[in-house]
Amino acid sequence: MKIKLEDKYLNDFINPREYYGIAPQIKTAHELLHSGHGLGSDYTGWLQLPKNYNKQEFQSILDAAKKIQEDTDVFVVIGIGGSYLGARAAIEFLSSQNYNSLPKKTPSIYFIGNSISPMALSETLKLCEGKRVSINVISKSGTTTEPAIAFKVFREFLENQYGKEEASKRIYCTTDRAKGTLKKLADDEGYETFVIPENIGGRYSVLTPVGLLPIAVSGADILNIMEGAAKAHDDFLDDRIDFNICYKYAAIRNILFRKGKLIEILASYEPRFALMSEWFKQLFGESEGKDQKGVFLASVIFSTDLHSMGQLIQDGSRNIFETVLFLDNVKQDIIIKEDPQNMDGLNFLAGKTMSYVNQKAFEGTVIAHTDGGVPNVVLHLPDVSEDTLGYLVYFFEKACAISGYTMGTNPFDQPGVESYKKNMFALLEKPGFSLTNR
Amino acid sequence: MKIKLEDKYLNDFINPREYYGIAPQIKTAHELLHSGHGLGSDYTGWLQLPKNYNKQEFQSILDAAKKIQEDTDVFVVIGIGGSYLGARAAIEFLSSQNYNSLPKKTPSIYFIGNSISPMALSETLKLCEGKRVSINVISKSGTTTEPAIAFKVFREFLENQYGKEEASKRIYCTTDRAKGTLKKLADDEGYETFVIPENIGGRYSVLTPVGLLPIAVSGADILNIMEGAAKAHDDFLDDRIDFNICYKYAAIRNILFRKGKLIEILASYEPRFALMSEWFKQLFGESEGKDQKGVFLASVIFSTDLHSMGQLIQDGSRNIFETVLFLDNVKQDIIIKEDPQNMDGLNFLAGKTMSYVNQKAFEGTVIAHTDGGVPNVVLHLPDVSEDTLGYLVYFFEKACAISGYTMGTNPFDQPGVESYKKNMFALLEKPGFSLTNR
Repeated sequence: MKIKLEDKYLNDFINPREYYGIAPQIKTAHELLHSGHGLGSDYTGWLQLPKNYNKQEFQSILDAAKKIQEDTDVFVVIGIGGSYLGARAAIEFLSSQNYNSLPKKTPSIYFIGNSISPMALSETLKLCEGKRVSINVISKSGTTTEPAIAFKVFREFLENQYGKEEASKRIYCTTDRAKGTLKKLADDEGYETFVIPENIGGRYSVLTPVGLLPIAVSGADILNIMEGAAKAHDDFLDDRIDFNICYKYAAIRNILFRKGKLIEILASYEPRFALMSEWFKQLFGESEGKDQKGVFLASVIFSTDLHSMGQLIQDGSRNIFETVLFLDNVKQDIIIKEDPQNMDGLNFLAGKTMSYVNQKAFEGTVIAHTDGGVPNVVLHLPDVSEDTLGYLVYFFEKACAISGYTMGTNPFDQPGVESYKKNMFALLEKPGFSLTNR
Repeated sequence: MKIKLEDKYLNDFINPREYYGIAPQIKTAHELLHSGHGLGSDYTGWLQLPKNYNKQEFQSILDAAKKIQEDTDVFVVIGIGGSYLGARAAIEFLSSQNYNSLPKKTPSIYFIGNSISPMALSETLKLCEGKRVSINVISKSGTTTEPAIAFKVFREFLENQYGKEEASKRIYCTTDRAKGTLKKLADDEGYETFVIPENIGGRYSVLTPVGLLPIAVSGADILNIMEGAAKAHDDFLDDRIDFNICYKYAAIRNILFRKGKLIEILASYEPRFALMSEWFKQLFGESEGKDQKGVFLASVIFSTDLHSMGQLIQDGSRNIFETVLFLDNVKQDIIIKEDPQNMDGLNFLAGKTMSYVNQKAFEGTVIAHTDGGVPNVVLHLPDVSEDTLGYLVYFFEKACAISGYTMGTNPFDQPGVESYKKNMFALLEKPGFSLTNR
């Protein structure tokens, strides 16, 4: 499950003395995080989570997932931001972007309530017609506009379809332990509930019930995921960057940002990593993008995007660096056969596997981009198993916290997210709201 | 079908004299483009295309699409870059990201050959099992690695399934008029062929057979698309930015870039626009991202990404601007009902439509981001119809050409795309290749 960090392509961009220079700041960040004295320390519950999660609730998640797998064709997950990205990213990483289309024994899983598009919501309703449906609504308060609208619509759908009694057995609420309207409604109506821990923010919540219930419904082994995260917890405790690749990665990001590499592109070579990249963008973007500073986050899937964003990365403005996520071992491989006439000019590849060609595309690209002036740091993943996923999630979470502290920000708040909501409520004439700065 | 450009949110960021200052450069760009004396002028065939496309070939596309709709369950489109993004973007824009999952009378359409992932290719094969399959391979030469590998695998699949004779009736090649190995193979084997015009580059090719055949198979009215593009052709001939929103947009991008807004984020409020944004990123990224300059391109779907990238956009590094694509009229709408107990706190929205709420989210966000220091230019789309799509495609294509010339680049080449290929071939020991700069 272990990740390897390859830093040799950074030699032309980072002088060894820069690592010495930043190392004490990384130590300080480690100290802040582990002592609980840093900014936002009320939200560091994710740090020990893989070692001390609630085993009883974990069993309830497994039981609920089993029931859902048995009585459900379409599982609708309602949530936005951290209550959406992590679960979907994990399911696609472990299975496929085509999870819903592929033949399988587990329910199809659709994510909704993550926008205000009526077309998207109508469509999801259509996908449920004639199917056995259950829903998981994920919201701390129950009043966040996007999921609240979708839940209102889907609750009515279920009650019309099954009646109130049976519908109540098909609604699973992941919400606050005690407070909020969703918790109250769930108690009144007898919906099963799971707890969003109060000391873990949305973008750090994928290993809580927020992510675990949908992931378990997809058939993934969530115990294995937690074991991978626990291993990462143990592996990344050393405060010296030479002995801790998680911290080394945090150091590299800060060094590059300070010398004008303002944009980080997460590049991977598997389409199934696309949503994982979105999760990554939320994690780092919300943690560091504040007070008019922070790295801008982008993502690409290669070689696909070598034929779109590739030109710009190779030769555009030199303000970018790349973090490459490369998968060392694939699940299914394909051997390229010889063509007697060599019509497609591919005979130089005959007998080789696609994964071998993909690896050479990766190596060739890293060399080309580095030669073009783009620093590349490479993370090697051994496989797309559950424990690797857990390990990777924890790696990024901790790297993000350390990186944020090193940048001097609070990596656990997101004050800017309220701004659009306040204006939206003012424009919708919700009592008590007025336009900002007007 | 017409697009409206709203520039009032730029007032705090662009002084009127800046428009006067750049207007003569835009006139020059117009002159370069229309006279055929600009850089890369061999590749401006897209400019007159909506007025002078080959009607006979257009009819062949319609005929082929009809046959495919009748004898095919799964249509596999093999291509990369411009031979992939445009068609997929159009299908999702007109139908949905869930096109393949939704109940429909037209074939499912899967895109492959756009990466070297063996897992993605294996999966697509699995999706074809037990189905009636046809394929469209799109490649000028026939030797581009990614599509060539996929075509090899799928050709074998079809020949095993149907025998060589019937398989040859299920393979459609979009390729060069005369040259290249794919053209030769198609002629030898009797595959139907469609022509990639030699004077139109990949990223400008969506309104050629490259895009039109897959789009027609999805059931869209491609004649209407061409009519929308023709209307845009007529609407954007004036070389004065006050009378040409396409040129005005090109001017705005250049003004903002020159004052340090290095990143353009294309923001839209409909999940079905996600691939259209990818097409946009290729179009502008390959056209302008060269010679160590150019705007970096990113995209978001709101309100989804207001809960991920939103924090960073609101309050991160102030080097970004946003182009907002907003849909004024939706296809299906949903009315928000009253809840007697107002448990979800949504009663202030009772009786309102989701599209109304989405519009207020859009307005509130533009105000919030503008207040936060992010210039916003808004493009209003009237609907998601075919003619609007054609109009939008032509709008962006021409804006890109004018913007590129104004930046002083060749908007029609992509020299950097070769770099990774050369290294990959060298690492794969293809005769005649060696690592760059080593």
